[in-house]
Amino acid sequence: MSKVYVIGLGPGADRQMTLEAAKVLEKCQVIVGYTVYVDLIKSQYPEKLYLTTNMTQEVKRCRMALDEAAAGKAVAMVCSGDAGVYGMAGLMYELGEEYPGVMIEVVPGITSATGGAAVLGAPLMHDFAVISLSDLLTPWAQIEKRLKAAAMADFVICLYNPSSKKRRDYLKKACEYVLEYKSPDTVCGIVRNIGRDGETHRVLTLEELKDTETDMFTTVFIGNEETRQIGGKMVTPRGYQYV
Amino acid sequence: MSKVYVIGLGPGADRQMTLEAAKVLEKCQVIVGYTVYVDLIKSQYPEKLYLTTNMTQEVKRCRMALDEAAAGKAVAMVCSGDAGVYGMAGLMYELGEEYPGVMIEVVPGITSATGGAAVLGAPLMHDFAVISLSDLLTPWAQIEKRLKAAAMADFVICLYNPSSKKRRDYLKKACEYVLEYKSPDTVCGIVRNIGRDGETHRVLTLEELKDTETDMFTTVFIGNEETRQIGGKMVTPRGYQYV
Ligand SMILES: C[S@@+](CC[C@H](N)C(=O)[O-])C[C@H]1O[C@@H](n2cnc3c(N)ncnc32)[C@H](O)[C@@H]1O
Ligand SMILES: C[S@@+](CC[C@H](N)C(=O)[O-])C[C@H]1O[C@@H](n2cnc3c(N)ncnc32)[C@H](O)[C@@H]1O
Repeated sequence: MSKVYVIGLGPGADRQMTLEAAKVLEKCQVIVGYTVYVDLIKSQYPEKLYLTTNMTQEVKRCRMALDEAAAGKAVAMVCSGDAGVYGMAGLMYELGEEYPGVMIEVVPGITSATGGAAVLGAPLMHDFAVISLSDLLTPWAQIEKRLKAAAMADFVICLYNPSSKKRRDYLKKACEYVLEYKSPDTVCGIVRNIGRDGETHRVLTLEELKDTETDMFTTVFIGNEETRQIGGKMVTPRGYQYV
Repeated sequence: MSKVYVIGLGPGADRQMTLEAAKVLEKCQVIVGYTVYVDLIKSQYPEKLYLTTNMTQEVKRCRMALDEAAAGKAVAMVCSGDAGVYGMAGLMYELGEEYPGVMIEVVPGITSATGGAAVLGAPLMHDFAVISLSDLLTPWAQIEKRLKAAAMADFVICLYNPSSKKRRDYLKKACEYVLEYKSPDTVCGIVRNIGRDGETHRVLTLEELKDTETDMFTTVFIGNEETRQIGGKMVTPRGYQYV
């Protein structure tokens, strides 16, 4: 039975990769992925056949990987972060139904939520909700409902795809919904280019976040009632008693 | 300035560690942690000073790490999974306020949510909420509120600490709240001993999950409306069109 590994490279795609991901990449013959991520690993594994597609061609990319595996090759489909969080893992299983001879295995990676949290300090120490603001595949009404439910129950909220050129005001709208339940002073954080050259981060209030411009290389964190700043870091206490 | 690294080892504590975590462990002189996790890495790094405490002594364990760093040692505080998800990262920053000369850096790890998701298939492909059922540090009323809010907004739900000897019926109670909003046929999954010897998993319905006994080495996944079984795997589609 031939196999496709769906591998999360971590947000930075090199030192944040797991030992297992590195080992599996080593043994695969074909590496398939979105151009930008493939370029991040090409220099480390020069002896491979690389197949790439552009950003929006997810279905084509998955089929390329499945076709190569069906032809008997050991194939890695690579994603940034974790392949199972807004990545290609789900679509691979869906399309994989048409390839009964191909086995699919997911190799987990650091996702932007935990990778970004480490840069900010410890914002995700208590219950949290992960929400994508992209309405390409999800109706905005559902995104709105989830933002409000998460804010109402005082989850820490982690936002992926906070904005893009076509969706400049989405983060502002999201903050407005959250402000119906959380204080404008809620401690928030943004991290751009996690694990990559030019990584930057900022800790700010929810009120400030509302008027901040971000982009598609940014992950956003909105604290809960207890989240506070400690020496410039964003920290959500879990409730241990220590005094 | 001396430094403590707070390192997530991944749920399996060896092959799921990142390249960065391995590199940082290599260069530290002192490794501090809960006995069980420290035992998992001792054989790989025999030449270190190991300091351990029992499960409930989190404050003591953090102070041990901070004291060693204040004395000029390069220290690693290790946690299973990610140190920033129900781990020691938050408490380290809180206690760190008393140690102005010690810098704290979090090195992210695969958390049980993404590690377990990879075993089950791709359950976390859409918006999800992570909730701990432990009421040692959180009032049960707040856990209840979050479970209901997450279920109402049709998040995929990932549960940590689903039960322990003293809290045998917590998962059952949690499923009952969720059943107020989600169908009894909702596709669910449980994974035990992720990344460790004896790893097991099962895909089942929410109705079945309600009457299933788990333990503290298990992570639980409750799907959204779209989650389905594909060839024994638990898959939440993201909504790509491919037919
Ligand atoms: C389609 S999702 C892919 C997520 C990825 N599979 C993961 O697990 O991190 C793209 C979004 O992930 C976040 N993201 C991915 N890589 C990032 C990085 N290096 N720095 C900051 N955010 C990142 C951003 O919010 C971005 O808009
Ligand atoms: C105190 S929390 C620590 C979580 C950890 N920091 C993480 O990021 O995975 C303990 C809970 O994490 C989950 N967990 C940790 N390691 C696990 C493993 N190897 N397999 C399954 N679940 C695990 C279980 O739900 C357990 O009750």
